[in-house]
This record gives sequence, structure tokens and C-alpha cells, in this order.
Amino acid sequence: MGKVKVAAFTVSLDGFGAGLNQSLKNPIGDRGTELHQWMFKTKVFQKMIGNSGGTTDTDNEFAEKSFQNIGAWIMGRNMFSPHRGSWANQDWKGWWGDNPPYHAPVFVLTHHEREPLHMEGGTTFYFVTDGIESALAKAKEAAKEKDVRIVGGVSTIQNFLKAGLIDEMHLAYSPIFLGSGENLLLGVNLPKLGLKLAQKVLTDDAVHIVLEKQN
Amino acid sequence: MGKVKVAAFTVSLDGFGAGLNQSLKNPIGDRGTELHQWMFKTKVFQKMIGNSGGTTDTDNEFAEKSFQNIGAWIMGRNMFSPHRGSWANQDWKGWWGDNPPYHAPVFVLTHHEREPLHMEGGTTFYFVTDGIESALAKAKEAAKEKDVRIVGGVSTIQNFLKAGLIDEMHLAYSPIFLGSGENLLLGVNLPKLGLKLAQKVLTDDAVHIVLEKQN
Repeated sequence: MGKVKVAAFTVSLDGFGAGLNQSLKNPIGDRGTELHQWMFKTKVFQKMIGNSGGTTDTDNEFAEKSFQNIGAWIMGRNMFSPHRGSWANQDWKGWWGDNPPYHAPVFVLTHHEREPLHMEGGTTFYFVTDGIESALAKAKEAAKEKDVRIVGGVSTIQNFLKAGLIDEMHLAYSPIFLGSGENLLLGVNLPKLGLKLAQKVLTDDAVHIVLEKQN
Repeated sequence: MGKVKVAAFTVSLDGFGAGLNQSLKNPIGDRGTELHQWMFKTKVFQKMIGNSGGTTDTDNEFAEKSFQNIGAWIMGRNMFSPHRGSWANQDWKGWWGDNPPYHAPVFVLTHHEREPLHMEGGTTFYFVTDGIESALAKAKEAAKEKDVRIVGGVSTIQNFLKAGLIDEMHLAYSPIFLGSGENLLLGVNLPKLGLKLAQKVLTDDAVHIVLEKQN
């Protein structure tokens, strides 16, 4: 049985998991590039966007690990698309081009029905309209023995955390202050949820924290 | 002209500057010892509590620096005392024994008048009942060319931050999660206040962050 996990999710030291003003031209919001610096420089990420090179350091190891053994993915609708409301624009196929980096089923949480979207490289986006528990059941079935990764964004991760559904969470704290945005741990009591510190590694660009559920 | 600064103030990664359930036996609240681990081990702190030894590492340098060039101190009443309300118990002279580690005037914010308290080693506690601006004016006058340090707790620092009165702030992020307590940066937008990252240093027990006001 695989785990349900969050991995390589970046937050600022003041707790924000995404900048303000997300848009088509600015998918990760204001100062998102700074926030994700630890990952952008890595070999894993550079390869993903078609470049050679990139670092092969500890940050790269965490980036690499975040893609390993994932049998299915779950993400919030705002992570899939800059649009809101019904799927008026069926041309939108995510931010990631014809061959997204998921290579497995991705369950997108939405209030609006849409047919599955089959992409190159084994990624299929399924649109789930009946909530996180249903999405998780579908994802677990699809993942078989592998892990289910909750990709984001902030409110999706919060909902899974508050429902006690996360077994493992790797957060990368980026040493910057965003000042405003979506606060990941607002109202989330990690010790109370049974999530205990299992690993911390400091690099020049991040504090990597791994929390594991202890039953 | 000296600076108004916060120094060596410790917060958990989920943003809490103090644990819950502060009491006479537990002055820094639940898990406060874990929170302050980076400082407790240092030579500076061990000397303060009458021990020899302690580390002489980067953490110690930050602890040392936090006591340098301070001409006056400001603290909230809850940092001075576990009691609340009027000063029924005039015997209470702070947590620090006869010779507190301040060696300069300390202005204690309170709603209740009390005569100044002269201690050994140059520390005098003055009780200020007319607000933070008044306390700061008195502290600046007492400090002359030196700095004024806002010691804490969380709500005192928040009030000074929100009033735009802090020139420099050193926070030590301790890689633990408290889950609940007083959240230092809740509703505080550091970039908007003009406080910019000036220094970050990672050690085994803390992420030291220095922010400076840029006008």
C-alpha cells in the first residue's frame, strides 16, 4: 500500500505557499521565481523544461525524490488552470505542454465536470467533482502499490491535511518573506495531526523538512 | 542615533514565537526548551545562567550580538511576569534573579502603574502605562547613541512592527513545529513595512534571518 504524500512543496518563511496575482503570464504569482529558486536551478527541473545542466546537489536530490514512485497525482483546479468557473475554454490543457511531467493519472479537483484529457507520455487528467475523499479513492486505485502525491495548491493541501489524509509531507522553506499570499499552515496544527519531524536538511536555498505521520 | 531592533527572537517554522500555557514553572510555554535549543547550548546563554562551557559557534555569535550596544530595552508585561492585572504581588522582580542580564533601563509595557525597580548590575525596570510610542521615546532618551532592543513577547513585537517602528530584526527560525501558540507574523507584511532580507545563515539548530528597514 502506497503513501499519500506532499513533496517538494515550497513555502516562504512567513508561511506562504504561493504569491498573489496568479495569471496566465504569472502562474506561480508574484515573486514565485524567488520562492522556487531552490528547485529551478536543479538538474531535475532544468531537464523538465528541456535544458541540459542544472545542479546535482541536495536540492536536486529532493526534487528527484519528489517524482519517484508516484502512481497518481491530485491537484486543485487552480493549479491546473488560470481560469475559473465552468470549462468554457476546452482548449486549456494545463501549463505543461503536450507531455506533462506526471506520466500517470492526475485527478483535478473541480466543481465543473469535464471529460478526461489524455496527454502524451502517460498523463491523463481526470476531473473530479465530488470532493477530496472521492479523488483520493480514485487515485489510490489508480496508483496500486505506488504513492499518491498531492501536488497543491495551498488550499488543496490544507484540505487533505485537515482531513488527516496525509502520511508524509516534504516542505521546502525558502528563506524569503512574501508578506502576503496563501498561508499553508494557517489553522493547521501539525503535531496534533500526528505529523512529526522526520528529517531536516539545510541548503543555501532552502530548509527541507520531512514530516511523517506517527500512529 | 541608535537603532530600534529585535534580536535573537525565536520562532518555530509554523510561525509561533512562544508555546502555549506559560506559567511560573514554565515561563516560555510548552516545548519552549526545544524552540530555544539553538541559544540554550551557547556559551553566552550558559554564562548567563552561571555555567561554564557552551558552544562558540555561529549560534553563539548571534546570541552574543543580541546583547551588544543595547542602551535600553522594552518588553511586554507578560515577558516580565507570569501574573496578570494589577501589581498585587510587589515581590515579583522578574524571572532573572537579583542581577538581570540587561544592565540598562528596561521599559515594561503595562496597564498598571508601579514604581521603578532598581536591580543589581545596572538594570532598572520602569513600568510604562501610556503605550508603545511613549515607551520608545523614554527608551531612546535613556539609550542615547546606543540601540533600543524590543525583547518580546510576540504581541509587543507585533505592535512595534505594525507601527513601523522597527529598524532591524533578527529572527531565529527553529526547525520545529509547535502547532499552536502566538503567531509572530500573522497579519504582518514584512516587505510592505520596508523590512528586507539582509542576512541569512543556516546552522544545525536554526535559520538566522536578519531583516533591515530600507527607506
